[in-house]
Amino acid sequence: MKFEILAQDSESSARCGLIYTDHGVIETPIFMPVGTLGTVKAVYHKDLEEDIKAQIILGNTYHLYLRPGIDIINRAGGLHKFISWNKPILTDSGGYQVFSLAENRKLKEEGCEFRSHIDGSKHFFSPENVVDIQRKIGADIIMALDECPPGDSDWNYANKSLILTQKWLERGVKHFDNTDPIYGYYQTFFPIVQGCVYPDLRIKAAEHAVSLKREGYAIGGLSVGEPTEVMYQMLEVTVPILPKDKPRYLMGVGTPSNLLEGIARGVDMFDCVMPTRNARNGMLFTSEGMINIRNKKWADDFSSIDINGTSFVDRVYSKAYLRHLFISGEILGAQIASEHNLAFYLKLVAEAREHIKAGDFNVWKNIMVKKLDSKL
Amino acid sequence: MKFEILAQDSESSARCGLIYTDHGVIETPIFMPVGTLGTVKAVYHKDLEEDIKAQIILGNTYHLYLRPGIDIINRAGGLHKFISWNKPILTDSGGYQVFSLAENRKLKEEGCEFRSHIDGSKHFFSPENVVDIQRKIGADIIMALDECPPGDSDWNYANKSLILTQKWLERGVKHFDNTDPIYGYYQTFFPIVQGCVYPDLRIKAAEHAVSLKREGYAIGGLSVGEPTEVMYQMLEVTVPILPKDKPRYLMGVGTPSNLLEGIARGVDMFDCVMPTRNARNGMLFTSEGMINIRNKKWADDFSSIDINGTSFVDRVYSKAYLRHLFISGEILGAQIASEHNLAFYLKLVAEAREHIKAGDFNVWKNIMVKKLDSKL
Repeated sequence: MKFEILAQDSESSARCGLIYTDHGVIETPIFMPVGTLGTVKAVYHKDLEEDIKAQIILGNTYHLYLRPGIDIINRAGGLHKFISWNKPILTDSGGYQVFSLAENRKLKEEGCEFRSHIDGSKHFFSPENVVDIQRKIGADIIMALDECPPGDSDWNYANKSLILTQKWLERGVKHFDNTDPIYGYYQTFFPIVQGCVYPDLRIKAAEHAVSLKREGYAIGGLSVGEPTEVMYQMLEVTVPILPKDKPRYLMGVGTPSNLLEGIARGVDMFDCVMPTRNARNGMLFTSEGMINIRNKKWADDFSSIDINGTSFVDRVYSKAYLRHLFISGEILGAQIASEHNLAFYLKLVAEAREHIKAGDFNVWKNIMVKKLDSKL
Repeated sequence: MKFEILAQDSESSARCGLIYTDHGVIETPIFMPVGTLGTVKAVYHKDLEEDIKAQIILGNTYHLYLRPGIDIINRAGGLHKFISWNKPILTDSGGYQVFSLAENRKLKEEGCEFRSHIDGSKHFFSPENVVDIQRKIGADIIMALDECPPGDSDWNYANKSLILTQKWLERGVKHFDNTDPIYGYYQTFFPIVQGCVYPDLRIKAAEHAVSLKREGYAIGGLSVGEPTEVMYQMLEVTVPILPKDKPRYLMGVGTPSNLLEGIARGVDMFDCVMPTRNARNGMLFTSEGMINIRNKKWADDFSSIDINGTSFVDRVYSKAYLRHLFISGEILGAQIASEHNLAFYLKLVAEAREHIKAGDFNVWKNIMVKKLDSKL
């Protein structure tokens, strides 16, 4: 996997570049829509590609392992073929879900035993077998198994957790390097830097990850309950340690303004369920601020969902119609809102790239952040 | 509204033709997707038009009157503008929903008082005000208020019900003729022929409706619990009374084979929730028969949903993937299945039109009906 930096902002750590994978080129900074179970919820693949202009999507190892199961995905020829998506895919390792969704988990040095949240069946994830699983899923970018401690963990817990995560990381790297892709295209393996809200642990984690010389690095365990400012501080501590010439991926983050602040601090890749989950709850991100479309004030507003929106739904549908769909519990409401929010996120990172290239990213970012956080 | 007959089958009553409306031409026989609340459930308008190739959709007066309310639709400039659909729309009168959904209804000679199934609020539908409401909705084809008796009603009840429906029809016609469209395009008014499963009542109802000289006629009160053969018999009694040079609309019917048998008996227009409702339950209509996609046998079937399907979903997605979406409760499953089923229905009537023109409709119909009713 090659990463090429095209431009570097002079007033911030923002940069834009290109990640080359066997499923195509990804422009960074990029937002990656989350397709947990092999579907970006309520969005057709053709719209994801042509309208939203997604360049890479996420799959989730824990969910896909349970449903449809790795055997089915393997027999389909990998996740790309199973779900009919020919652009890059990144899979997370399932660690986060084991700790947030699974039942009766037993954490051991060897790995983590857990019961499925669907049928209670017993399973085991280790640093090695999540590599094997992700080899079979066939993601272009695969992630290390980690433990993600809560944002309010104390230092002792966070340190103990990090020690385990680091041991797992070394085992994951070793196993990855000893195995081959099974579908004929290249896969790469990203470590995840943990360390909770403790700068010393973040530094230790980042230095350790860098010592393993990978093609990209993820920062995990942020946006898990800690104040936003603390998240930004952790980025400021962590990012400078990561190699300049490798992509940096901030996991599970965040709001539109979180993205811009992350980009300003040198992050290249983001993923988050927020644009789709909020969409299904009637929360829209627009160029002028956030909208709760169920609000009565939109009942007779026949204007476009977002006058500056780039999605076809912004050209076709009105706020009044979209509100009607939500009030009536119609599936099309979730579809339109998901499509809009994702198109908005992808447009936002596209604009960020343009401003980095133009050299005025930081000025633009400071104006945008205020707008993006306002409520209409 | 003009109706032009292009071809008449020599071995059945099937015919194909064109209905000209101010929102475009409709090829008959046609299936009209149901858009109860101003949305064909889980289907984007662009896909409805370009992929499914719908030529006219339905709206429902009862539902739209309650949500978003007629005032909102009126202020949007009519339903076409409110929902962003520029092709023809037909609205049913709401009679059927008042009798099947609403609570505490009080049927009187004057009309029907009822309580909303949503919030219990009290409302009143009369033969006159449902015309006014449909004028404001702005449907191209608007329907008379009727009472639809259950399929197992006795003759006395059915006769009493028909007498009321006929009085309401005369009042509806009179009110329609005394009012004007409010959005500058033409609207037409279809009577509904009732009479339950009693040939004498059906004949009486059809002759009465014809005496009112309208531009099209609907046949209601079928597929409401009576055996399929009885439905076909009622068509055979009713259709010959209706004018040859006016379109005939069989309301709320039905399965793919019901459509073909209806066409063979001279029906031009159909609507039914079946393709979308069944889709949301994982039941697919295909060129080889019906599929329950949740069935385990499809778990590793990586072939197209329907190898002869014309929708983009048939080209993109596999049975195994669609099953995975249904088993996982993903919205995209409902989207794909709805898109497929509607495209299948629209293709079926398009093929019927071609076979009527080619002169081999009846032979084709008899082969198709057997396939369509089989379960895969």
